[in-house]
Amino acid sequence: MDAEKNISLAVVRRLPRYYRYLGDLLDSGITRISSREFSKRINATASQIRQDLNNFGCFGQQGYGYNVELLYTEIKKILGLDQTHNVIVVGAGKIGGALIHYDHFARRGFSFTALFDVNPELVGGKMNSVPIFHTDRLPEYIEQNKVDIAVISVPQAEAQKVCDLLVVCGVKGIWNFTPIDLSTPDDVIVENVHLTDSLMMLSYKLSEERILQHYREKGKK
Amino acid sequence: MDAEKNISLAVVRRLPRYYRYLGDLLDSGITRISSREFSKRINATASQIRQDLNNFGCFGQQGYGYNVELLYTEIKKILGLDQTHNVIVVGAGKIGGALIHYDHFARRGFSFTALFDVNPELVGGKMNSVPIFHTDRLPEYIEQNKVDIAVISVPQAEAQKVCDLLVVCGVKGIWNFTPIDLSTPDDVIVENVHLTDSLMMLSYKLSEERILQHYREKGKK
Repeated sequence: MDAEKNISLAVVRRLPRYYRYLGDLLDSGITRISSREFSKRINATASQIRQDLNNFGCFGQQGYGYNVELLYTEIKKILGLDQTHNVIVVGAGKIGGALIHYDHFARRGFSFTALFDVNPELVGGKMNSVPIFHTDRLPEYIEQNKVDIAVISVPQAEAQKVCDLLVVCGVKGIWNFTPIDLSTPDDVIVENVHLTDSLMMLSYKLSEERILQHYREKGKK
Repeated sequence: MDAEKNISLAVVRRLPRYYRYLGDLLDSGITRISSREFSKRINATASQIRQDLNNFGCFGQQGYGYNVELLYTEIKKILGLDQTHNVIVVGAGKIGGALIHYDHFARRGFSFTALFDVNPELVGGKMNSVPIFHTDRLPEYIEQNKVDIAVISVPQAEAQKVCDLLVVCGVKGIWNFTPIDLSTPDDVIVENVHLTDSLMMLSYKLSEERILQHYREKGKK
């Protein structure tokens, strides 16, 4: 997988989508698919898909199409999904709680092992069979257990402090659900889910439509 | 705002972030900021920010910097946030419930007006003061109320059916939390929050680090 070092992030960003569709095909018992049919399903051109996948070695065969399981397994490896990731959630509020109950993650090999919160009403309890510990116990837990990814779903004002603690404890992957941008050392990976930014983008696109509509209607007169 | 028609989506995607930072500055009573200080806070080069903002007319002044409130108000308009957006949520499960309780949206002018679900234990109740109706009542509700955006947070197997219904009822903005890609007509805007894809990207980046680390260590020997 030497090629991987030169893959653009734009290509990589499309892989989870390929992976999802291939998983659905496997679930439906489809083991082989023509590049035309695959591109139709995935709503991308066959050449785009071919180019993307060529980055990781050529998986399609002329006149045969794609071997679904082979491709699925390859992308799984590229995405690092051939290993289980242990995930902890810091902040057992509504967002943290929703994530703990979301069953799609387990199917992708993400195992949610513990929740942390400061709320005494939550600490000591469980959510979807996952134990809730006091946030003070984070260092101890991380020392004793393999933690690959930590979700931060605490109030905005606490986010950087929690992040710093996780970094000191050696966590390398952070999935940030707070609306701020976290400061971390270079060797820590942060993936943001900025919900408000996403909603603002939707608002922008809706306004853009309105503005363009306005121009179209002016054009007609 | 004629220029807006030619703005690349990459630029627009950065605006919510600018907007968030400007809002924080206003909250702290800062009304004027040098481009150097702003770029330091936002972690982008001053020239990048200048280029981005120039797309919408020049807001910075030599030797003065940025007028925070002016810039905030302009970006607000560009993002369509000068109007209130009415949002309904279809699917009052864990994700829908978490969104209803998320207070950052209201501050950006998004008003969550109704939830819809098929679960008889939920229908007729409220979440965070927002009423929950049966999904059968969607057409009637949308006819009688202004609905700008609908969140889809139902199980995957129901998602496209719900989406079709919303489209027939005339909803133009869809915020999709299900792990599938929805089919919609061109005049309907869909913004996806594909949580599993985001987590897979994090997994990829973590593996990439491991692979690069492996190469670095090999190089040392």
